[in-house]
Amino acid sequence: MREKRAFDELRPLHIQTDYLDFAAGSAYIEIGQTKVIAGATIEEKAPPFLKGQGTGWVTAEYAMLPCSTERRSQRERTPGRISGRTQEIQRLIGRSLRAVTDLAALGERTIIIDCDVIQADGGTRVAAVTAGCVAAAMAMKKLLDQDIIDKMPLQHLVAGISVGIVDGRELLDLDYAEDSQAATDMNVIETDSGQLVEVQATAERRHSRGKT
Amino acid sequence: MREKRAFDELRPLHIQTDYLDFAAGSAYIEIGQTKVIAGATIEEKAPPFLKGQGTGWVTAEYAMLPCSTERRSQRERTPGRISGRTQEIQRLIGRSLRAVTDLAALGERTIIIDCDVIQADGGTRVAAVTAGCVAAAMAMKKLLDQDIIDKMPLQHLVAGISVGIVDGRELLDLDYAEDSQAATDMNVIETDSGQLVEVQATAERRHSRGKT
Amino acid sequence: MREKRAFDELRPLHIQTDYLDFAAGSAYIEIGQTKVIAGATIEEKAPPFLKGQGTGWVTAEYAMLPCSTERRSQRERTPGRISGRTQEIQRLIGRSLRAVTDLAALGERTIIIDCDVIQADGGTRVAAVTAGCVAAAMAMKKLLDQDIIDKMPLQHLVAGISVGIVDGRELLDLDYAEDSQAATDMNVIETDSGQLVEVQATAERRHSRGKT
Amino acid sequence: MREKRAFDELRPLHIQTDYLDFAAGSAYIEIGQTKVIAGATIEEKAPPFLKGQGTGWVTAEYAMLPCSTERRSQRERTPGRISGRTQEIQRLIGRSLRAVTDLAALGERTIIIDCDVIQADGGTRVAAVTAGCVAAAMAMKKLLDQDIIDKMPLQHLVAGISVGIVDGRELLDLDYAEDSQAATDMNVIETDSGQLVEVQATAERRHSRGKT
Amino acid sequence: MREKRAFDELRPLHIQTDYLDFAAGSAYIEIGQTKVIAGATIEEKAPPFLKGQGTGWVTAEYAMLPCSTERRSQRERTPGRISGRTQEIQRLIGRSLRAVTDLAALGERTIIIDCDVIQADGGTRVAAVTAGCVAAAMAMKKLLDQDIIDKMPLQHLVAGISVGIVDGRELLDLDYAEDSQAATDMNVIETDSGQLVEVQATAERRHSRGKT
Amino acid sequence: MREKRAFDELRPLHIQTDYLDFAAGSAYIEIGQTKVIAGATIEEKAPPFLKGQGTGWVTAEYAMLPCSTERRSQRERTPGRISGRTQEIQRLIGRSLRAVTDLAALGERTIIIDCDVIQADGGTRVAAVTAGCVAAAMAMKKLLDQDIIDKMPLQHLVAGISVGIVDGRELLDLDYAEDSQAATDMNVIETDSGQLVEVQATAERRHSRGKT
Repeated sequence: MREKRAFDELRPLHIQTDYLDFAAGSAYIEIGQTKVIAGATIEEKAPPFLKGQGTGWVTAEYAMLPCSTERRSQRERTPGRISGRTQEIQRLIGRSLRAVTDLAALGERTIIIDCDVIQADGGTRVAAVTAGCVAAAMAMKKLLDQDIIDKMPLQHLVAGISVGIVDGRELLDLDYAEDSQAATDMNVIETDSGQLVEVQATAERRHSRGKT
Repeated sequence: MREKRAFDELRPLHIQTDYLDFAAGSAYIEIGQTKVIAGATIEEKAPPFLKGQGTGWVTAEYAMLPCSTERRSQRERTPGRISGRTQEIQRLIGRSLRAVTDLAALGERTIIIDCDVIQADGGTRVAAVTAGCVAAAMAMKKLLDQDIIDKMPLQHLVAGISVGIVDGRELLDLDYAEDSQAATDMNVIETDSGQLVEVQATAERRHSRGKT
Repeated sequence: MREKRAFDELRPLHIQTDYLDFAAGSAYIEIGQTKVIAGATIEEKAPPFLKGQGTGWVTAEYAMLPCSTERRSQRERTPGRISGRTQEIQRLIGRSLRAVTDLAALGERTIIIDCDVIQADGGTRVAAVTAGCVAAAMAMKKLLDQDIIDKMPLQHLVAGISVGIVDGRELLDLDYAEDSQAATDMNVIETDSGQLVEVQATAERRHSRGKT
Repeated sequence: MREKRAFDELRPLHIQTDYLDFAAGSAYIEIGQTKVIAGATIEEKAPPFLKGQGTGWVTAEYAMLPCSTERRSQRERTPGRISGRTQEIQRLIGRSLRAVTDLAALGERTIIIDCDVIQADGGTRVAAVTAGCVAAAMAMKKLLDQDIIDKMPLQHLVAGISVGIVDGRELLDLDYAEDSQAATDMNVIETDSGQLVEVQATAERRHSRGKT
Repeated sequence: MREKRAFDELRPLHIQTDYLDFAAGSAYIEIGQTKVIAGATIEEKAPPFLKGQGTGWVTAEYAMLPCSTERRSQRERTPGRISGRTQEIQRLIGRSLRAVTDLAALGERTIIIDCDVIQADGGTRVAAVTAGCVAAAMAMKKLLDQDIIDKMPLQHLVAGISVGIVDGRELLDLDYAEDSQAATDMNVIETDSGQLVEVQATAERRHSRGKT
Repeated sequence: MREKRAFDELRPLHIQTDYLDFAAGSAYIEIGQTKVIAGATIEEKAPPFLKGQGTGWVTAEYAMLPCSTERRSQRERTPGRISGRTQEIQRLIGRSLRAVTDLAALGERTIIIDCDVIQADGGTRVAAVTAGCVAAAMAMKKLLDQDIIDKMPLQHLVAGISVGIVDGRELLDLDYAEDSQAATDMNVIETDSGQLVEVQATAERRHSRGKT
């Protein structure tokens, strides 16, 4: 059980902006031993299903470096390897960022947020949302500074955190060891004004599948 | 806006058990115009990550018939076509059923729940959970009746329903037209004893992507 | 050997038209325990190899629900899983329908016939041709009724049936058990005017491969 | 229309045995400008579905060199490229050879027949059956000569030929130009004792798809 | 060790031009027991990354017939099967031919060189470069003869050969047995004017992987 | 042309060992703006083709973060996306490390070296070899320290560097801008004793393909 942290205490958290030299926006986040790089790319076209509607899109990709985990995780290169977990997380990041973005203000553009996990010790999906929001903000600011768009499309900041019940106690920001013992597991994404954007809770007991 | 139903009223719901002659367990569910077939298959081995641990597993697959939707949806045959949405739903069904299953009582077996959507008019994922639970129950009962297992692994029934906020009103069991207008969208899975098993809520405004 | 049916007697056959609410045309066929849904979709463009030639195309897709067979058949999702059998059947359905269609009268359109086997007890490919023809006819009629085309492209109806030699006796409409014992196996597709459209006969003895 | 050949006359046909130095059996066939290499490989195990039954299997693979046709045909490397036509032909070759093979005499072995089309001018599938039978025979003879099996599993030779109706005339052994004009197209596989092994006839009019 | 050939002696080498009737250019090369067919196809468009730049491209594909090797090599059809070795060789052939081609003189065209190995006894990649150059030259000459281009884009001929160190002796043109024992292995591509175009040398000792 | 560095001068180079907490060995390398993470994983089995021979294997995987380049590079997730360049580099890293490893001393184990490019400014493949060697060394040392193996399998250190000819001048360690202008491009891998392990030189002029 958690000893060195209060139950509602976060692990040490650092964010470094502009981590990558060639990306439109980027951020590196460390929360405990969990380390994620988020990079934002601006594409000058909307996805096919939005064509001609004058609005843009924000989407995300998520991957883990093979050596980011205790046991090497295979690259999701071959079909069948693109796991449901990855898809689920990518969709969560994308929805979270779109929920706080004025897509019309973005114009017919797509912002792709690449979240790559360098090291995984629990909470990678919420760390990815948080760092992804910073990277997106910086890319959008660049568009604004260059007068390509008229107003900031990002209406709120979003950040995420995990919550779980371990041995009957509610814990904030679970590391991997805690997460493996949690009876209930919840990820919460909120805006800077306190609005809930995504809530995902599951009561499945953990069954030794490694990554969660 | 909804006129013929009360805001907290379900659409007409029918479940037909033993819909398929060759499956270990099966159910056909109609909820309004949404129609789903669930079939259960028993495999006499646990998945690799549980090997030798004496417990079983419940997993699910979900697919839509191409003509189940207003606009034909392509079969997810070719790689890259296996969408994130499908993966997300399959994982939801699997987690929901495992949350109410005593996997040790199942022994080293895998139960696969195939949920195939014949027609989609909103709420297919929760209909799939509900029908999937019936199919799983029938397959487990068969194992029990044949004395292959000692006690019923299914500890509770689960069922799901969607909730959404449309024009500021909270609606239960959204059809596709309502779902397309919802500001907030939530899927809730509960047991027969009223315990929450899964909650997924999102505040992303809908952006004309068709299937949700 | 067959006891309750005459050797040249079909199993009970039912066709329900307009089975699906959202398809341009559809039919549900039951022949004995074999059950197939056919849905037709109209696409307002010809395939690339016919572009600009003023004529259309009819094509088909075929799949089996995993629980349609005694032993669960895996979904053909992953590459390598798209079996030769499936391809062979899809091509048979497509050729059979094109043989009775005036493709010029259809204009630069593609009709896709989706045949999904709900339950398989022998003869699914010929059942799919028969139901597919009904679904195609209804979709074409819709085009005609809406004055989108000038004349009915379907020049004849087609239907198919299997024939086999079991223990030296010629049997019509084999169920799965009979099919497994057949020395010779033939599928015949004919028009309503008695013209042969496709004949496929094989003398390979059956070798326990399950689906045929 | 055909001028230099009688309507029931074959094109010049040559078969060279032992064309490949490293294969267990092989043959090179030329029929007119159509050129096919068939190679046989012996694997010392039966396919999974025959395991432990004491019998073997014969299977085939078919491919065309990209430059074998007037218009380059793409390699079927990427998924989705493995065409239905290829699958259909591979299955035809496999069934034809199994129909004349005593699979029990072969023992728990698999013979793979690789048919690679060097040049395609009509009739490649029947040329592949014919050359494939020679390659299979030579591989089986090698097993017999080395006392690995007791008796020749090949009970008959098989060969195939195409027949078609062009301008109302029945033509034997169609080249590509004739095949493109044929109203009806039939491939016939027979044994050396005159028994029909496979008959595939279609009345679909040709629609400029190139390879048939 | 090599006995019948001098250490710096090539195996017997034959090239047959115009080997294929339907290709724009083609060559068949035999060097000892190694046999390769190269076919050239002219496509009237440049690849996307060169669009609108007025220059063309030369690219190559390489494959081995399954029975070309002592042990059958699987077709690279399914994803994951497209091996690194194949990719490496395709890139080598393409770079070698582009190094001697005036791509501007070719205009906005792509020449695809298909190299198919009929039999493999060492040195297939350099044989493919040599035969590929002949096929490319013939295709380009056809463009020139038809006044489609103004001058010959091929500025030099290229040919390749392997060199290796076996038991401390430098050997030219290694066959498969020699190649398997080589301590160092080098492939050299040179122009007819003696300029080096590609040099690839590796000191990895061989580890029984079969194809090299 | 290069101004701030001598023609034979390297860019600033830093290596950080033990960069990852969960890998058996790891290193982070910066050479100018090029940044690569290498992680080593030990698997307690040899690959299938070495089974039972008492020796091990070293293999490598290479990937670039999408935002590592000026223009976002797509993840190589979907088949067909696994580029020849990636395969070529992976094979180069693997061969280079095996050339200095006593595979018998490693025992029946596989060491996988994952090289992930965080930022790409020329020379990523040689940076990957250099960092990969450090990661491999640390993983092997761990095996030695734990008495799992008897002697250090790594017999030499290897490192790589690029050389090119730009405007007639020979340059060492090209950055991306220099590499794009190079007439000749060479990658050299050497051991700490000055032995050449791999040499790859090409005279292809650059054609605007971006990554090299």
